[in-house]
Amino acid sequence: MIYLDNAATTKPNMDAIIGANYINETEFFNPSAKYHGGLVSSGIISKAKENFSRIFGSNFEVIFTSCGTESDNTAIFSYAKRGNSVTTLGEHSAVFNCFDTLKKSGYDSRFAKINKDGSVNVDDLLSLIDKNTVFVSVVHVNNETGAINDVNYIAKKCKEINSRLIFHSDGVQAFGKIKVKLSNYIDLYSISAHKIGGLKGVGALIKNKTLKNLKPYIIGGGQENGLRSGTENVFGIKIFETVAIEKDINFDKNFNHVSNLRQIFLNGIDKNLFTVISGENSSPYVISISARGLKGEVLQHKLESDGVIVGTGSACSSKNPHSRVLKAAGYDQLVLDGVIRISFNYDTSIEDVENAIVKINENANNLKKAMYNL
Amino acid sequence: MIYLDNAATTKPNMDAIIGANYINETEFFNPSAKYHGGLVSSGIISKAKENFSRIFGSNFEVIFTSCGTESDNTAIFSYAKRGNSVTTLGEHSAVFNCFDTLKKSGYDSRFAKINKDGSVNVDDLLSLIDKNTVFVSVVHVNNETGAINDVNYIAKKCKEINSRLIFHSDGVQAFGKIKVKLSNYIDLYSISAHKIGGLKGVGALIKNKTLKNLKPYIIGGGQENGLRSGTENVFGIKIFETVAIEKDINFDKNFNHVSNLRQIFLNGIDKNLFTVISGENSSPYVISISARGLKGEVLQHKLESDGVIVGTGSACSSKNPHSRVLKAAGYDQLVLDGVIRISFNYDTSIEDVENAIVKINENANNLKKAMYNL
Repeated sequence: MIYLDNAATTKPNMDAIIGANYINETEFFNPSAKYHGGLVSSGIISKAKENFSRIFGSNFEVIFTSCGTESDNTAIFSYAKRGNSVTTLGEHSAVFNCFDTLKKSGYDSRFAKINKDGSVNVDDLLSLIDKNTVFVSVVHVNNETGAINDVNYIAKKCKEINSRLIFHSDGVQAFGKIKVKLSNYIDLYSISAHKIGGLKGVGALIKNKTLKNLKPYIIGGGQENGLRSGTENVFGIKIFETVAIEKDINFDKNFNHVSNLRQIFLNGIDKNLFTVISGENSSPYVISISARGLKGEVLQHKLESDGVIVGTGSACSSKNPHSRVLKAAGYDQLVLDGVIRISFNYDTSIEDVENAIVKINENANNLKKAMYNL
Repeated sequence: MIYLDNAATTKPNMDAIIGANYINETEFFNPSAKYHGGLVSSGIISKAKENFSRIFGSNFEVIFTSCGTESDNTAIFSYAKRGNSVTTLGEHSAVFNCFDTLKKSGYDSRFAKINKDGSVNVDDLLSLIDKNTVFVSVVHVNNETGAINDVNYIAKKCKEINSRLIFHSDGVQAFGKIKVKLSNYIDLYSISAHKIGGLKGVGALIKNKTLKNLKPYIIGGGQENGLRSGTENVFGIKIFETVAIEKDINFDKNFNHVSNLRQIFLNGIDKNLFTVISGENSSPYVISISARGLKGEVLQHKLESDGVIVGTGSACSSKNPHSRVLKAAGYDQLVLDGVIRISFNYDTSIEDVENAIVKINENANNLKKAMYNL
């Protein structure tokens, strides 16, 4: 099997899991307990916090959550219920649907237009911001196209219009994949473990230490310094820490390798069959292409029979026939119908990509032929 | 080590973890993905849902969450923002602090008094309910004393006053430990995996199928039939299912064994040193006692040196010097100071309990002597 749907989820790092298994076997204590075992458990979490702070810089701290979606919800619902709030049409559902829910409840949610590659139209975004804007959320890397928004620049520009607004970015497809060096203009940043080899059910909200008034979204025993209640998922956090460190250490090597895969893929794909949706400066980890006139889902199933697993847009919004984001980017039905998403992992091999290209071209070609013969 | 803090968290069932490891190794796909692997993942979740429905009865369905606390938050914040809402002074922080937060925001949250054993004063609870009550939450088993509230009876009585109110119960310390046979008067019920041998980071909200208008608390990609977004924690859910089935199958055996442990413990404890706080009809899994005049935390640390791990009230509210619940139950400072909590697991042995009794009596006695000699 050649697995090219790593933006949906990655194969967990089994070494990290095995390495953390002692937490289930012997150090399973409740981190809130005051005896030695509890202190060991809370120490594991503190250590993980230190390492995330080191990766993000000492002006950032980490709040562990149950997933990227919860991180997004925490950020949005903490601030976006006053004045007006601004996001983009290129957001993941975890952000978009929160803003949409707020809008339907009568709040002033605003959505900036996006460009053809899925990146935000910065001028449009800035035009939506005014003195009453309390919260802005812009995805760092679009999960369907890989488009990179320069969130440091955008946050700076937003705050030049209104210095008091809170700037959040969903970094779920960015962290561990593209260079994430958050400026001090970023207040909150969401990340997820299972997109970089960690377990499902673990995420984090990275918080600028200067940020005030973040409200807990899950309320209870006051864990995570009162910002996220519920017994901490020590095992999952430890694995998240391990894979995050590994991604940090091997960043250049992985990035160069995956950039190479991307180039090989884009060179190899039959341009008579496919429209490339992803832009030139996108994350190398995600490529969106469309077999114009074909059904992406049919192509996906044909490829599966040949042992090549690809995505079709975002796995998280699979109930809608067309991608909300690519529709907003202005593509017509012919293109929208044919979208497939190829997403790499650090350990995807060149050979895998070369074999996938052959299968992708071949199957699209056969489908096209079959269609015209009918 | 004799571990008697199982109400804080249980040692995970390693067989269940090993049995579920194939999910990380080979079936790691995103359950929303439309290819075979994704269907296998979503099939694992569907199967788990079926088994939970079987355990709770066919009129109940399960929504998987990240913890008991999230389950409580989902129930409460979905309904408790209209009219008035009623809970008890004996709730876990995951419920109490939600109501408290609502009260501080100006909502009409009402708190029923509790009895000496930590159970709710049902007359007081019923007196707080009126035509405008939209939501009632009563803990099934108190996490500090083990007091059992007859939630089926209480829900019936509440609905006799106002048939439209929604009745929720936090069953985190009940599920898998005492007989849980929910009547149709119960609308929502929270449970947690790590209290019965599952992993931290997994919980569920059991929902009566007739219940309408439950709102998702975590919003995004629409997983869990739109009621809980975020990529599902397939691995954690599978383990939760396994341990829940096992607890269901072995219920009588475990219950009888732990009831026996409780009796041995209560018989063995030196009544000149200890006040028993837990009532006669409490869950056998949790016993709260107080070494009047001593500090529970000091006794806890002495016992730890002797290899006996006990709790002091709820691990989740460890930042407060005294138990909020036991204070509400009317105990004076002398008793509150000396509280320790003993909580069993199905695999706690008689020998463990007998050895613990010796150590508990001995250490309390030594501390008392040392105090009077000073």
